[in-house]
Amino acid sequence: MTAKEDKKKIDDEILKKFKDSAEEIIETIEKKQNPKIKIPLRGLTNVYFDEKDKMIKLGDKQQTRTFFNIGQARKFMQTFLIASALKELIESGKTTSIRDVYYRTKHTIANTTESTFEDQIESDPIIEDIEVGFDALREELHLFASTRGAVVGEITIVDSGDTIDLRKMGSGGWAVPSIVEPEVVQFKDCTAEFILFIEKDAVWRRFNEDKFWRKHKCIIAHGQGVPPRGVRRLIRRLSDELNLPVYVLVDADPYGLYIYSVIKQGSINLAYESMRMAIPKARFIGLSVFDYAKYKLPKDVTIKLAEIDKKRISEILKYPWFQKKDWQAELKEMLRLGFKLELEALSAKNVSFITEKYLPDKLAKKEWLE
Amino acid sequence: MTAKEDKKKIDDEILKKFKDSAEEIIETIEKKQNPKIKIPLRGLTNVYFDEKDKMIKLGDKQQTRTFFNIGQARKFMQTFLIASALKELIESGKTTSIRDVYYRTKHTIANTTESTFEDQIESDPIIEDIEVGFDALREELHLFASTRGAVVGEITIVDSGDTIDLRKMGSGGWAVPSIVEPEVVQFKDCTAEFILFIEKDAVWRRFNEDKFWRKHKCIIAHGQGVPPRGVRRLIRRLSDELNLPVYVLVDADPYGLYIYSVIKQGSINLAYESMRMAIPKARFIGLSVFDYAKYKLPKDVTIKLAEIDKKRISEILKYPWFQKKDWQAELKEMLRLGFKLELEALSAKNVSFITEKYLPDKLAKKEWLE
Repeated sequence: MTAKEDKKKIDDEILKKFKDSAEEIIETIEKKQNPKIKIPLRGLTNVYFDEKDKMIKLGDKQQTRTFFNIGQARKFMQTFLIASALKELIESGKTTSIRDVYYRTKHTIANTTESTFEDQIESDPIIEDIEVGFDALREELHLFASTRGAVVGEITIVDSGDTIDLRKMGSGGWAVPSIVEPEVVQFKDCTAEFILFIEKDAVWRRFNEDKFWRKHKCIIAHGQGVPPRGVRRLIRRLSDELNLPVYVLVDADPYGLYIYSVIKQGSINLAYESMRMAIPKARFIGLSVFDYAKYKLPKDVTIKLAEIDKKRISEILKYPWFQKKDWQAELKEMLRLGFKLELEALSAKNVSFITEKYLPDKLAKKEWLE
Repeated sequence: MTAKEDKKKIDDEILKKFKDSAEEIIETIEKKQNPKIKIPLRGLTNVYFDEKDKMIKLGDKQQTRTFFNIGQARKFMQTFLIASALKELIESGKTTSIRDVYYRTKHTIANTTESTFEDQIESDPIIEDIEVGFDALREELHLFASTRGAVVGEITIVDSGDTIDLRKMGSGGWAVPSIVEPEVVQFKDCTAEFILFIEKDAVWRRFNEDKFWRKHKCIIAHGQGVPPRGVRRLIRRLSDELNLPVYVLVDADPYGLYIYSVIKQGSINLAYESMRMAIPKARFIGLSVFDYAKYKLPKDVTIKLAEIDKKRISEILKYPWFQKKDWQAELKEMLRLGFKLELEALSAKNVSFITEKYLPDKLAKKEWLE
C-alpha cells in the first residue's frame, strides 16, 4: 500500500468507529433508554507493569458514562462534541493541536450562559478518553503535540513526500515533527547500525559536530529532556521496522533515569499508548555513577544529591522494572556516593572525551544496563 | 572569501584580542602595578533606546576590574580562566555550550579548598563580560545556546557544508542551530519575498501543512515563544542580506508584544548584542485586538486579562518604542476590552482561517503595525 492508501485506511477505520458509536447512541435514544458509552479507566488504579512485554500497560477496568446523570451529562456532551470536531478534522485531511480543538469546540450553549468548556483542562482529558475509548493513537486522530528535538544520521527519510537525507542536515538537523506515523514518514536507505538517544540538546550538538554518527554508523536523536511523542514514536518505529538497537544516554541523576524509563517502559500517564510508544529493548549506556571512579573524574564536577533526589532514588529502587541486580547496584551506589553527575561532567577531561573515548569504550565493552 | 576563510579571520581576530589583553596584563605585572581590565557595564543603568537606530543599546559606562582588590580578585581570576578556556576552544575549531565551559573551568584551586566557580550562575556572567568586553558575539566565541524552532520555505541554505533545500523539509522542517553565522550558514537560491515569524509551534505547523510559504512565496520560522539566539540571528541575517521584510505573528497579549519587541528592538539583557540581533524593520502583523470585532470572533474565545496583564500593558504603554499613535490605540483597546486573544482563537472560524483568509487579508491590505 502507498502512504496515501495507508492514511485513508486508518482514517476510514476511525471514522467508522465514531459512526458506529454514534449510531448506537441514537438507537438507545430511540428506544427511550439512557444513552451511555464505555471508556477504559486511565487512573493509577488501572495501570500495571506487564512482566512479559516489559512495559507499563492499562488494565481492563472501564467506566460507563451516561447521559441522564447529573455528574456525567456534561462530560457525555463534551465527548461527542469533541468526537464530532475530530470527525470533521479527519475528513478535511488536516491536522491540528489539542489547543485548537479546545477553541473549535468551545461555545456558549444556546439559550444558556453555560460554556461547553471552561478551560483546556476540561477538553484535554476528553481527548484522552477518545484515544483510549476508540483505541486510536492521538496522531491517528490528526492531533499533534508540541515538538522538540532533532535527528541526524545514517538514514534517508521521506516526510510528507519530501525525501530528506539525514546525512546532509548540517549542524541543525531535521526537526522531528509530532506525527511520524507510517503514512507521513517513511524510511529509506538506512546504513545505521544503531540509534543513540541523547537527553540533552547541547550534548547532541557535540556528537553531531564530531560526526560521531558517521564514524559509528548510527542515528542520533535528542528530545530536550523527556522526549516528546514524535521523538519517542520515531525511535520506536526505527527500532522495530529496521531492527536497530537503541541506546539511551542521560545524566546520572533521577531525572535521567526517569527519561530512560519512559523511553523503555512507557509512562504511567500514557500507559494506554505503551504498546505503540515504549521500547522495551532500549539500553541505558550512561552516565553511570560507576563512571566517576572508572574515568577518574575530578570531585569538582559532582553535584550533591538533594533530599528530593534521595527520595526519588529510594522510590526508583522499588520499581518492578529496576529490580535487576545491576540496576540495584547502580542506584545504591548513587545513594552511597551522595552525588549525581551530568553528561557535561565528562568535559572536565576534554570537550570531545564523550564522543572519542567514553561512548566508543562503552559500546566496545558492551557496558550498558537493560 | 570562502566560509572557511571567513571563519579563520574571525577566529584570528578574537584570539588576537585575547593575546593583546593578556600581554597588557603581563606588562602591568612586570611593572609591579595592579593588573586591570575594563568591561562595559551591562546593567539597566547603562542601557538606552537609540531613537535613530530604533533599538535598545548599551551605553558607554565601563567598570574596571582589578586584581588587588578583595571584592574583584575572584572575578578577575575567573575572567582570565574562562578566556583561556575559550582560546583553547577556538583553537580546536570546536563549539560547545556555556554549561560545558563551566565544567571545563571548574576546579579546586591548588592548595586551597576554594573552587574556581561554585555554580554556573557565576560563570555565565563572566562569559557575557567577555562577549561585551571583547566585542564578540557569543557565537564567535564558539559557544552555542539551547535551540528551539524550525524553518521551512522558499530558500536553499548551506549549513556546515551541507546544501539543504528548505522547500523540501516535509512536516518537520530544518531545526535551527544555535550558531548561524556566515561562516556556518550561507544562503542560496532564495525565491522568498518575505519572512513570517510565528510565535507558536502549533500555528507554524498549520502554515506548513497548508503550504502557505509556497503560495505566498515566503520563509516561515518559529521559536516556541521568545525565539532563541539562533532563530533571531537567522531572521536578522535573512532580512539584511536578502533585503526581505519581516512579519511577526503573535498572540494578542503582553507576552506576544514582548516577543515582537525583542525581535524588533532587542532585549534589555542582551542590549550589547542588539546591533547584530535586533530587526528594527520588523512589522507586527497580528493578532490585533481590533481583529476581534473585524472578524466577528465569538465571545467564548476571549480570555479575561489578569491583573498582571493589565499592569504589563500599562508598562508597555510607556515604552519609548510603543509611542506611535497606532500602538497606543492597540494597547488602550486591549485594556478597554479587558481581554486577550490567542492565535488559536481564529480556529473558531475554521482550522485554516488563519492561513487562507486572515493573513492573506492582512498582507493585501498592509494592515500591520511598526
